[in-house]
Amino acid sequence: MQKVRYGIVGIGKQGSFYTTLLTKLKFLLKGAQLTALCDISKERRTWAKEHLKKVAVFESYQQMFDSKLIDVVMVETPHYFHSEIAIAAFKSGLNVLCDKPAGVFTKQVEEMNAEATKHPDLLFGMMFNQRTNPLYIRAKEIIDSGKLGELKRIVWIITNWYRPKAYYDQGGWRGTWWGEGGGVLINQCPHQLDLFTYLAGLPVSVTAKTYTKGRAINVENDVTVMCSFANGATGVFITSTHDAPGTNRLEITGDGGKIVIENGKLVFTENAVSEPVFSKENKVFMGKPKTAKKSYRGIIKYLSFVKNPPQHIGILKNYTDYLLGKTDKFLAPGKEGIIGLTFSNAIHLSGWTGKEISIPFSEEAFLVELEKKKEEEKSISAK
Amino acid sequence: MQKVRYGIVGIGKQGSFYTTLLTKLKFLLKGAQLTALCDISKERRTWAKEHLKKVAVFESYQQMFDSKLIDVVMVETPHYFHSEIAIAAFKSGLNVLCDKPAGVFTKQVEEMNAEATKHPDLLFGMMFNQRTNPLYIRAKEIIDSGKLGELKRIVWIITNWYRPKAYYDQGGWRGTWWGEGGGVLINQCPHQLDLFTYLAGLPVSVTAKTYTKGRAINVENDVTVMCSFANGATGVFITSTHDAPGTNRLEITGDGGKIVIENGKLVFTENAVSEPVFSKENKVFMGKPKTAKKSYRGIIKYLSFVKNPPQHIGILKNYTDYLLGKTDKFLAPGKEGIIGLTFSNAIHLSGWTGKEISIPFSEEAFLVELEKKKEEEKSISAK
Repeated sequence: MQKVRYGIVGIGKQGSFYTTLLTKLKFLLKGAQLTALCDISKERRTWAKEHLKKVAVFESYQQMFDSKLIDVVMVETPHYFHSEIAIAAFKSGLNVLCDKPAGVFTKQVEEMNAEATKHPDLLFGMMFNQRTNPLYIRAKEIIDSGKLGELKRIVWIITNWYRPKAYYDQGGWRGTWWGEGGGVLINQCPHQLDLFTYLAGLPVSVTAKTYTKGRAINVENDVTVMCSFANGATGVFITSTHDAPGTNRLEITGDGGKIVIENGKLVFTENAVSEPVFSKENKVFMGKPKTAKKSYRGIIKYLSFVKNPPQHIGILKNYTDYLLGKTDKFLAPGKEGIIGLTFSNAIHLSGWTGKEISIPFSEEAFLVELEKKKEEEKSISAK
Repeated sequence: MQKVRYGIVGIGKQGSFYTTLLTKLKFLLKGAQLTALCDISKERRTWAKEHLKKVAVFESYQQMFDSKLIDVVMVETPHYFHSEIAIAAFKSGLNVLCDKPAGVFTKQVEEMNAEATKHPDLLFGMMFNQRTNPLYIRAKEIIDSGKLGELKRIVWIITNWYRPKAYYDQGGWRGTWWGEGGGVLINQCPHQLDLFTYLAGLPVSVTAKTYTKGRAINVENDVTVMCSFANGATGVFITSTHDAPGTNRLEITGDGGKIVIENGKLVFTENAVSEPVFSKENKVFMGKPKTAKKSYRGIIKYLSFVKNPPQHIGILKNYTDYLLGKTDKFLAPGKEGIIGLTFSNAIHLSGWTGKEISIPFSEEAFLVELEKKKEEEKSISAK
């Protein structure tokens, strides 16, 4: 392969953002080319035909898949359709770069992953753009190096997803069970839920409170989660779209020290001696381990920016380069999308039922509850 | 009253600390005088007789109460005895300055408060030394001024109470149900549980996980709490004595902005417009309130230090000055001790039962569970 030809399914807010990246920022995405797109909206297709040169425009995705004009399908539809479109793409012999979330419920994502498994020759990626953030890359490096040691605690306060009434007033699928399948967990937080599980692993149990506050929407916009991991470590995850000003602060503590990411900076405070060893050997009544502190600002200079661009371009570049054999490091494998979604579904299920949820949980029970939410929503809308 | 004469019950680690303050730092505590103490330990009484001049030494507290040598009783015994000794002091017509916690369970503290109510002429204080911390004073001022607005969220990560094995190895009552009635909640955290409820109010429901990790003790040393308040606001409280390095970070968000206290600094980010008003009036898709940021370091200069000394001396000075009519602001009323303890007991009860606990809860249910813990402990010790 010399060039990677992309075809986008759905050019709403997110899909049209990628048309911009692929057409206006080509110098950052060598080897990538936008060759086709499709959308069910006539208005959007008309816009595309007028504004995008050398890009074929289709009404149905299957027509685009059969056109032989593309190598990769970018899935940019509402969440519920992600897995069905990805499955159709694999069946058409196409690579897939799916936007987050992987889906709304794990059952459909398992089907997508199963189809992906049948096509080991096709590259399956997920748009986890925050995985290109140098601060989280550094955190992962510290953890993988063993310096943080055994995990004790992870706490993420991610309450700076502020969305005013005007956001939800745009209507359509926003803030609905039928359209999105959830609120802040499914729309804004897939990145953090991915990184939380990427850095700390998938919890084994989840207790959560989910609320809708200060907005005329049906889905949750305020969530507090306590969870525990197989090794006994604990976690807290707090998110909101109505806190102003909000916070984005991640703290991970292990036997070897503590990582804090806040305000564009990572601080790693490393213990001179692993805490359990220190506690055992220390003879001082109130003794504590000596520490050394290292800060990392993660500022990207121009040359590095071109080589390792951040966020969505970073994922697009990595995906393209990997397909072209220019790198052997694949940042966001599609099959990992189910991990953060499993955590997300468990949080919803705990919030809905008021119970602690063990992972794995009953996917059927989740679907029953989700359907109830959709039914409630219908009766609310009908009023 | 010209002088306030103090008598200390119990001169273990904490009681002997106050003998030092009252004898060596007199210039900060004008009007206060240590005139008597009592302890059941002969060794400690001998030490006191040798080292403290003009201080009467008693074996029993009732003898000291009857001696007419003191105006105030400082209660510095193990936690279980706080309320019974305070009640005896009130009955002897003496003022009481009780150390934290007010007691181990709310039922005994209610009896103490009831006795205090019968003696409105006697001053009842609690050693909540963190209430003299200028950062929390400033936080309380901002909240009381209305600038923070309606409470949305409070999150306190207070995991820097590190206690190594050597601490618990000192034995005795440390880390036991029979001796302390709890772990980090009852020994280290009463300050934060007091301030949490002082700043945000008492929650109406509590869901908590309590664990014992990495130490050969019976009581909890790792706690995660989710709670909710009457107005729908939510809170999280995380504490530990085995995290190293730990964190002490308090964040309080309201409609009007956010207060963060960390690393000896308070930052108040104030919204130009209250968030609910902004959300209603704003027309921008992703708009958010404009903010102004103010920092406050709370550094105490020498003169201010003498006038408003911090921590334990601050409480002693305020108590003395209030008794002498030199101030009309009483920082830490004894009857407020029950509020943080109610929160503490609810956390324990939720951790023990695995259930969400509504406040008020059954005090009997709490006592039944506490007795179970003590019984379990006996069988562990007997092994």
